[in-house]
Formats: sequence, structure tokens, C-alpha cells
Amino acid sequence: MTADKPESSPGQHRQIVEPRTLRGFRDLLPEAAAFRSWCVERIGTTFRTYGFQPIVTPALEYAEILRGKASQDHDREMYEFRDRGGRDVGMRFDLTVPLARFVAEHLGELVLPLRLYQLGPVWRGERPQAGRYREFVQCDADILGSESPVADAEVVAVFCQALLSLELRPFTMRISDRQILTGFMERAGVDAEPAAVMRALDKVDRLPLDDVMRQLAELAVPAAVARELLDTVTERADNDDAQLDSLAARVGGSEVGKRAVQRLRELRSLLTDLGVPSANVRIDPAVVRGLDYYTGMVFETSYHGAPAVGSICSGGRYDDLTLVYSKHRTPGVGASIGIDRLLHAVLDLEGAKPGGHARPLVLGGSTVDDQVLLFGVARQLRASGIAVDVHPDPLTFKKIRQYAARRQSPLFVYVAAGDVRLGPPMGAPIESCTLDDLAVEIQRRILLVQGES
Amino acid sequence: MTADKPESSPGQHRQIVEPRTLRGFRDLLPEAAAFRSWCVERIGTTFRTYGFQPIVTPALEYAEILRGKASQDHDREMYEFRDRGGRDVGMRFDLTVPLARFVAEHLGELVLPLRLYQLGPVWRGERPQAGRYREFVQCDADILGSESPVADAEVVAVFCQALLSLELRPFTMRISDRQILTGFMERAGVDAEPAAVMRALDKVDRLPLDDVMRQLAELAVPAAVARELLDTVTERADNDDAQLDSLAARVGGSEVGKRAVQRLRELRSLLTDLGVPSANVRIDPAVVRGLDYYTGMVFETSYHGAPAVGSICSGGRYDDLTLVYSKHRTPGVGASIGIDRLLHAVLDLEGAKPGGHARPLVLGGSTVDDQVLLFGVARQLRASGIAVDVHPDPLTFKKIRQYAARRQSPLFVYVAAGDVRLGPPMGAPIESCTLDDLAVEIQRRILLVQGES
Repeated sequence: MTADKPESSPGQHRQIVEPRTLRGFRDLLPEAAAFRSWCVERIGTTFRTYGFQPIVTPALEYAEILRGKASQDHDREMYEFRDRGGRDVGMRFDLTVPLARFVAEHLGELVLPLRLYQLGPVWRGERPQAGRYREFVQCDADILGSESPVADAEVVAVFCQALLSLELRPFTMRISDRQILTGFMERAGVDAEPAAVMRALDKVDRLPLDDVMRQLAELAVPAAVARELLDTVTERADNDDAQLDSLAARVGGSEVGKRAVQRLRELRSLLTDLGVPSANVRIDPAVVRGLDYYTGMVFETSYHGAPAVGSICSGGRYDDLTLVYSKHRTPGVGASIGIDRLLHAVLDLEGAKPGGHARPLVLGGSTVDDQVLLFGVARQLRASGIAVDVHPDPLTFKKIRQYAARRQSPLFVYVAAGDVRLGPPMGAPIESCTLDDLAVEIQRRILLVQGES
Repeated sequence: MTADKPESSPGQHRQIVEPRTLRGFRDLLPEAAAFRSWCVERIGTTFRTYGFQPIVTPALEYAEILRGKASQDHDREMYEFRDRGGRDVGMRFDLTVPLARFVAEHLGELVLPLRLYQLGPVWRGERPQAGRYREFVQCDADILGSESPVADAEVVAVFCQALLSLELRPFTMRISDRQILTGFMERAGVDAEPAAVMRALDKVDRLPLDDVMRQLAELAVPAAVARELLDTVTERADNDDAQLDSLAARVGGSEVGKRAVQRLRELRSLLTDLGVPSANVRIDPAVVRGLDYYTGMVFETSYHGAPAVGSICSGGRYDDLTLVYSKHRTPGVGASIGIDRLLHAVLDLEGAKPGGHARPLVLGGSTVDDQVLLFGVARQLRASGIAVDVHPDPLTFKKIRQYAARRQSPLFVYVAAGDVRLGPPMGAPIESCTLDDLAVEIQRRILLVQGES
């Protein structure tokens, strides 16, 4: 081990590039990386059991594709540049826009309706904050080619199950429909652009009400209507039925609004039929989402373990998004789990130490010949799925035990001149063993350790 | 289903953004995406059983970090731009350079020697060719902090096992040591820069020998020495022992060369001890690798299923790479599987249809009430890990059967007015069933289908 040997000769100046990551970007060390990869695998497994199939889209797209139909906010947050071929390109800021491009491009090869999922990183140049990064992984699942409320319900259900599979603290999926607000504005006779009004209302949780009122005034929404809008989105009824009744009253005779409330009622009932726990869902008109492409049902998810991180899972229906890329309309509904925000909530805010990520067993020898004696044991254990780290350097007993302790290994084995000893790196006594029994003995002890935890 | 309903009113011109991907970038459709994700998961599992732990590094880094110590070729291939904060940034072109930066940056938090792995995309603006993309996923595993040949052997062994776990056609890991050529040049008294000579020799497989000779002449390598160099790298001995003996003769009295040959001999013997099948490894001095950061053992992997794709798994020892970012030297050895090249070989060149990716079962109903009857069955099946797609729209029997056939489902279930029918979408007869027996009956049939395939 020569890891700490400074190399540059004294007096000789060597230029060192300072090792650092870009603002808003970060490394994941093994514990966080293992937890994230465990979460992503669980989510992917849940997606598959609900009939979703994986696709992959590129990280880079033509900038015009990405600009297609996001809100103005997104344009400003996109990493854009001109490549060496003179093309204006951008790094994707979500997985929904590339999905819409994908569906438009491959429509002839796809059987609709279709359930697709994507797991991958996206990039946004927004101001970094605790739990908000410029690079983060999204886990998306979408149903394309159906306008049925069953599709909406299946999307909410699969994400509820995916979150439950992560064994988190309680969460609430808060559901609404953008058409309710459109209906409300229709009833109130307000002519403002609905998407702009919704972008303003989306800030209700983050800005003082006065600021939101001012933004609505700028959009030519009369003060009385603006106040009623704010009342609508901040109302908390006792239960979903009461909330839906109140919304029905607020949209009055607007056909758009009545249809939206009816659809939301149907969705709520389908969720019960699908077995979604009622503790995990709530009708909440405060949810409008900031992205312009949503056309119907929308939802966000509050995580009670760390409410400050914001929504950990959001989505909705976007029936017109493919029209940006195609003359064919392929309605869609889908959502996304922001796994890095969740990671921040669980690891940084809750301070949880996620278990289940087995530390490797350490094998060490006093000479290369002793190490070689351990290779057969390593093979057997690895073949049975046990993680084994053969320390590459010949070492003393004391050093290997220290190393195993620092690596937090459950068990280590040491061979010197053919004599085998094994035990946990701290506490319990070290015992002798023969090479022949070693693999079986280790498997027995690993099972014991797992039984205790 | 309104997927095919054109939306734009006649006469009204709507601007459509042409759906297309950038040159060298591509989408993966479900079959290829499922196969790639299966490969990556298998590789990750093998890495873990060999004691490697996952880390994650960002896709974007300061350009100066990435430029640190790659060959000139890589600089030209990097996606570089200035971000909105005025920073010169680049998209990583491999996972080794970010790993070296990571180790330098987190040295105080790490226990050495350390086994780390990374699974993620990298980007290179090189000319796209069949199987070579501008975005591709690499699966890297590295041992940091040890110069021992046991570390080299464990790296070769883990990658051999990872490739074996993919159930591919035969492959050969061709292994050499860069110091052998350094030793040869020392013995021949040639003063040319070894890295430049190796970059030229790395092209032996791709360029006519005359071109390589010309490049060596430009590097001031005398013609006689150049010819002997080419003889050395193109020699094919009967077996590894003979190859090593011949290399020993070629390096003559050079200490550097003798040490390298001895080390390679030791590595070859350790690989046998570790149980690496001798059919999968060969000593081959033609392997030098094009990247400047390699300092010792290097290897590439030929895939006999599709030799034209080039190396599917490559790596080596890079003992000085962290010195670019730190005054501490942390020797390293590692490698990478280029999973997209492998995907191209298996899916496009061999035309393989990888199995094991279960198609979802399709459930359908004639009305929403009939669909709701199926929700409980869907829950039970999904909980037992069976992939179930509830068709979101109420449909006729004929339509649902067609849909199931086009989705290549093993089985579909249809409920109309409470009557349940099930069967494979093609061939065998459709049978009746009761709702109570449905989940059990389906599980039995799914097992039957799996037993047949």
C-alpha cells in the first residue's frame, strides 16, 4: 500500500488540478449510492409488475425538441450549447418531453395503449438548494394512448406502490385536475391565459399570498375572482367527498369544470377499487403543477418524514404534448419520482442509516501463498452471492483486523502459514478453522449475523 | 383510444417540431432497454459479490478536471461548453478520470485499499459508426490504493465473471503490460516518448502496418527498432508461457522490462488460482491501449460472437492518475464494460432475441364495472411479482385479444358482464373461469408457460 506516499520530488513544482465538483453537482459515496441504486431497482420492479416496459432516451437532444412545450421557467434552466457540428443542443431537463418526442418518432413501431418507464438523470441549471441539485435522477412511468380515468388511476396506483416499496415514513399523494381551475375561470368569466394563472397559483406554497395576488392582478384577474381562486386552492375539506362537493359548487355551471370534478370523483373511486390505501391519497385543489404541458389530472406527493423537501413524486395528464412533434395526438398520463430529493430527505434530514446493504467480508493472508489459499473460498462464497473482498496486499493479522473494522465488515478471515483464523473484527473472540470447512463455516456465520440485524 | 385522431383543424397551420435524435445518439425501445438493464444489473451484482461498492459521480465536470490526463484524442472528442455561470465544463468521456478526481477529493473519508464501481453514461463526440455511439453506458470497477498483482488479478477475474454472467458467446480477455514496451525501448536505446509510441502501436489492428511504421518514424524510432516493435506486438505464441518467454527475450536486460514480464507471469498464475477459465484469458502484447494514463497491466476483450465491434471490456493499471489532482499517489487498477457495444453485437449483429424479459399479462373488461372486477386480481398477481397490464379502456373481446397478441402477452383475461374468460392470445382455446379462482388459475398457467420456454 503506497497510497500516502507523496510523489513529487522536493523542490520540483507539480501543477495540481484542484479536485472539485461543479456547484449544484455532487458525488455519492458508497452508502448513499447503494441506497439510491436500491431505491431505483425497487421502483423499476414495481413499474414492471404494473406492466410498464423500460425505454431509454438520450441525455442530449436538439434544443428545439426540448424547448417544444415546457414553461418559460424551464427554458431558462436548461443546459444549452452549440456542439462541434454546429447544432444547438440541450441536456434534457425532464424525461417527459423526450418521451413525447420518442412516441411521436416511433409511433409506427408501438402498440397503443402503451406503458413505458424511464430511469435516468436530468439536468437543470436552477439555483442549488438543500436537496435540490442541478443533476438528479428521475424515475418516470407513463401510459400513452388512452384518455381513460383507469389510466390515471393506474398511474397513481403504481407510484403509490413504488413509494410504499421503499419503506419510507408516511406520504400523501395530493391530487387535483387542472380543468377545475379552467372551469372556475370560465364560470367567473375571466379571460386570462389559464396556463399563466396556474403558474402563479403553483407558487401558493412558496410565496406570500400578497405576491400571488399581485401576479394574478398582472394577468388581469379581478381582485374578487383572485381571492376566490386562492380560497379554492387553499381550502381543506374534512374528506375527499366534501372537497369534491365544494369544488363542484365552485365551478358552477361550467361544462369543463363539471366534467373535471366528475372525472376526479371517478378517479378517487377507482383508486379505492385498486386498493390504494386511503391514507396515502387526498383530493387537494392546491396542486396545479408549474409545467404548461399538463391538461388534466395532476398530483404531487408530500413526504411527512421531511416536508421541507417539497414534492417527492409528481405528475399528471398531458394529452396534447405529442402534438408538438406529430400531427397525431397521443394522450398521455404519467409521473416521476425525484429520487435525489428523497435521498436528501432520508439520509440528510432524517439521518436514517439505510440497512440491507451488506458490507463485504474481508479475506487476508500473510503472504501471496496464503492469499492464494483463500481464492477457492472466495470463489465458493461469491458463487453463493456473498460479497467477498480479498485484501490485495499481504498483511499482518493486526492490520487485516483493523482494515475489516474500518470497512465495517461483519467477518474477516486471516491465513498465515496455512493456519486459518476467523471472527468479527471487533468484540467476539477469533477462532481457528480448517480450510476445508471455511466456506461452510462462513456461510453459517453470515446467516447468524443477518439473523441478528 | 384517440391515439390516431389528428387534432389540428383543417386549414389551420400548426408548426411541428420534427421528432429526431442527434447523430450518434439513439433511443432504446423496450426489448433493447430491458436487455441492457438486465445486463447492467447482472454486472452490478457480480461487482458486489467481489466486494466492490457503488459510487456515483456527476455527468458534468470542470473541463480542466476532464482534460487533466487523457490523451489528446480525448480532448478533441469531449463535449465542452461554457455554462451560464461562465464556467468551462465538459461531459465526462469516461468514468476513470472522474473516479481519480473523486478519490483525490474524498481521500480523507475513504478506507484504502478500496473497491469501487460505477455504472453510468459517458459522452464522446467521435465519428459515429455501427455499434459506436456518442452516448454509451460504461460499467466500471476499480481497486484503489494497492500495487499488488492480486489487485490486477481480482480486476480481471471480476470482469471475466461479469461477462460470463451475461451468458454470451465465447470471449477472450487479452492481457499485457505497458512496461514491457517501455522495457523494450530501453533495451533498444530508443529515446521516443513511450506514450506516443504506444498510441501509434494501439492502431496496429486498425491501420495498415506501413502507416504505423510511418508514425513511428515520425517519433524518431529507427526503422529496425520499429520493425522489431511491430514483430513484438503482432507475435502469437502457442501458449502464454511461450509468449512470456519470448517477451522476456525481447526486453533483454532492461530492469523495467524484466519486472513487467515477471509481473505478468505472476498475474497469469494468480488468474488460474482465482479460477478464471484459461479459455477466457490470453497474454497478448498487441494490447497497449490508447489512453495515456495507463502505467502497467492493460487488457482488452475480443468477443467471438461479433469480432467487428472491437473490445467489449478494457482496462488496466493507472498508478499515477490521482497525482493530477492530489499530492498523494493512490495507485489504481480497473476496467470497463462498454455495454452498448455489446448490445449492438448481441442484438444487431447476432440477431439474438434475449429472453427472460416477461411480457405483461393483459386484463381487459367490457365496461368500467368489469374492469373494476379485475383490479383485485391485478393486485394479487402484482404482489406475487407477475407483470400485469390492465387495459385502461373498456373493449370488446376481439379487441382485447388482438391487443394481447400484438403485445406478445402470454395470457389475457376478459370480463364481460361479470363472466370471466382467459387464454393465450393465439392458438389454444379460450376457457371460462370464476373470479374467485382467477388469480390461482393465472399463476398456474404462467408457471406452465414459463416451464415451456
